[in-house]
Amino acid sequence: MGLIVQKFGGTSVADTDRIRHVATLVKREQEAGHRVIVVVSAMAGVTNQLVGYCSAMNPLVTDEARANYDHVVASGEQVTSGLLALGLQQLGLKARAWCGWQMPLVSDAMHSKARIDRIATEAITASLAAGEIAVVAGFQGVTGDGRITTLGRGGSDTSAVEIAAAFGAERCDIYTDVDGVYTCDPRIVKRAKKLHRISYEEMLEMASLGSKVLQTRSVELAMNYGVKVQVLSSFDDRPADSIPGTLLVDEEEIVEQQRVTGIAYSRDEARITLTNVENRPGVSAGLFGPLADAGINVDMIVQNVTEGGKETDITFTVGKTDLARALEIVKTDKRVPNYDRVHSDAAVAKVSVIGVGMRSHAGVAAEMFRTLADKNINIIVISTSEIKTSVLIDESYLELALRALHTAYGLDAEEEKN
Amino acid sequence: MGLIVQKFGGTSVADTDRIRHVATLVKREQEAGHRVIVVVSAMAGVTNQLVGYCSAMNPLVTDEARANYDHVVASGEQVTSGLLALGLQQLGLKARAWCGWQMPLVSDAMHSKARIDRIATEAITASLAAGEIAVVAGFQGVTGDGRITTLGRGGSDTSAVEIAAAFGAERCDIYTDVDGVYTCDPRIVKRAKKLHRISYEEMLEMASLGSKVLQTRSVELAMNYGVKVQVLSSFDDRPADSIPGTLLVDEEEIVEQQRVTGIAYSRDEARITLTNVENRPGVSAGLFGPLADAGINVDMIVQNVTEGGKETDITFTVGKTDLARALEIVKTDKRVPNYDRVHSDAAVAKVSVIGVGMRSHAGVAAEMFRTLADKNINIIVISTSEIKTSVLIDESYLELALRALHTAYGLDAEEEKN
Repeated sequence: MGLIVQKFGGTSVADTDRIRHVATLVKREQEAGHRVIVVVSAMAGVTNQLVGYCSAMNPLVTDEARANYDHVVASGEQVTSGLLALGLQQLGLKARAWCGWQMPLVSDAMHSKARIDRIATEAITASLAAGEIAVVAGFQGVTGDGRITTLGRGGSDTSAVEIAAAFGAERCDIYTDVDGVYTCDPRIVKRAKKLHRISYEEMLEMASLGSKVLQTRSVELAMNYGVKVQVLSSFDDRPADSIPGTLLVDEEEIVEQQRVTGIAYSRDEARITLTNVENRPGVSAGLFGPLADAGINVDMIVQNVTEGGKETDITFTVGKTDLARALEIVKTDKRVPNYDRVHSDAAVAKVSVIGVGMRSHAGVAAEMFRTLADKNINIIVISTSEIKTSVLIDESYLELALRALHTAYGLDAEEEKN
Repeated sequence: MGLIVQKFGGTSVADTDRIRHVATLVKREQEAGHRVIVVVSAMAGVTNQLVGYCSAMNPLVTDEARANYDHVVASGEQVTSGLLALGLQQLGLKARAWCGWQMPLVSDAMHSKARIDRIATEAITASLAAGEIAVVAGFQGVTGDGRITTLGRGGSDTSAVEIAAAFGAERCDIYTDVDGVYTCDPRIVKRAKKLHRISYEEMLEMASLGSKVLQTRSVELAMNYGVKVQVLSSFDDRPADSIPGTLLVDEEEIVEQQRVTGIAYSRDEARITLTNVENRPGVSAGLFGPLADAGINVDMIVQNVTEGGKETDITFTVGKTDLARALEIVKTDKRVPNYDRVHSDAAVAKVSVIGVGMRSHAGVAAEMFRTLADKNINIIVISTSEIKTSVLIDESYLELALRALHTAYGLDAEEEKN
């Protein structure tokens, strides 16, 4: 039998009771004949506490400070890995806890957001061959010269997928507090359905558009390495082999393709509009260059040429937390082109319909616009890609829009999820 | 200028405010021209919390479990070392946090009570040469094959002394919540005086007899390596160079020797007496062998032969927490010799007068017995060594005995300590 990687997030290892339960889920995999590598996050709340301590000591703006920050913050996962190994031993299994430096899992030196360079498999392979379960502290690595690094928030998912790839695992099971990926957020759309399969590309869009189930980078990696990732709940008692969650697979493995697979949303963006901007070459560079220099990500951009063609209106979105800084730059930076007025609005939401089926089915975007029009919902900005269409709308219409679109695309389940 | 090792215990690094204060004490040493290695304990309460988590997962009786326990518990010091390094950087200094495995500080594999085998000095020496302050996580090491170990409770003192020896430090300053070693516990004897110097041997007796200022093993090591250790308070603002605390030195360096240097006590023992034990060769082995097999430490032992010599009464002391188990063994183990009755008493205390001056001054023990007799305090057991005399008395007379002895040996200060 093959190797399974299991990853348990913060709510799954919230306290010693939950860790004991996780031990039973790990034991079941080993009893089914698998070799098992477990990757764990910090116990719920621990990382925030450690980050809070660090921030109280230092503003953390220098690389040298971030190196010591990583030294502190990586300890959260170290604790969980040791505790789960103890829980497994208490069930009569052989188990050993591993920090990133012990494998080693070698990363670059970009402290607090490091990337994995290589994973040495020899030591853990020997441990597995001796019948031990390997319990790896996620979210952390070590530089070539022996300093602790962390992989950024959500980095334990990345650890799990990279480890699954390095060890050639059959499957990487990501246990979380939801039991899979849904057609839409079930807290808003009660008739949302769990997806049994979703393609990597769709999951990537779902993740980057606001579905918080998996970290974007871990989905990218799974796609690049072809790792079979299953998202499932540690509160579900069915065997993981029966695929009770959502499996990420190649597009070709999905037999019945829907036009739309899922609907994602984000409340994290704000809109800025500049009116009557002079329309000449270099205008976009003059506006978006200074924002990029300040590290502000611009997401959606639309430009409408006014009558005559001499001037144009430009609307774009930035993260809500960046809005004040972006406005300051727009108003003061000398490189920004001349314009009449600037408007901004933080009470907006982005809604995205996603599906690889869009490649072969025409009219998906048109149906989105018609559905929103029927509900009298005004579209502020539109942006499209090969497998998704996103619109920016007034935030107060968000729930209405999601439910209407979910019904329109035929995604509603027979019964409401409670 | 030379190298100073500073060690800060749990109350000195209780929270981020205290750690910020510690950073100023470290900065002062560097500004005085020293290279500085700092050794830190876990923040107050953290180790107990981590131990509690481990105990909730596993009874921790196997070596394999203790290895995972060490993996968890060592994280407490790791956090403090990173936070203090951040605090030093915030003061404009260069600082780097070090775990045991990063130096490496190599220990044996006796998990949860490991002994240090060797300390590699190259990496930290290079770091110091680059102007960095090294902030080392105390209490931890790493085995030759890369597993985390801990050195047992109080092990950060041991780390500090061993590091001071390995690096040839000028002085090892142990910062704690008291400002030095006193002639007696100042909470009981208000006229207790701070000792400016104490010999290693005396400190060893003080530590093993109940004075909790330093861990016994760290004193042994300081004596063996000839490390100059100063005990001082992190709440005291005088420069450490002015020796505001108590300095541990060789006996010859103490010019004016008193007969008695200090008086220690312990409430941790309980007494067991067996009456009319058959008196034949092998009786002691039959009694104390089973206790040793059960891991029960026996401290004081007296044996009085009764008239005729056929039988004997044996009294001995064990730790209070071992009393029930010890009685069970005495009553049930087949190897224990025959006796008439067994008595036990947990309401006892051990009082010890200590001083290298006893070697040259006669009558110290006699004065102790006379002083106690004058106060009508009954002595249950007496035990002596070259530089101390201990007696076991009824616990309710403890304070009275300490104050009477303190006065009798001329140790009282002019004024009361408040």
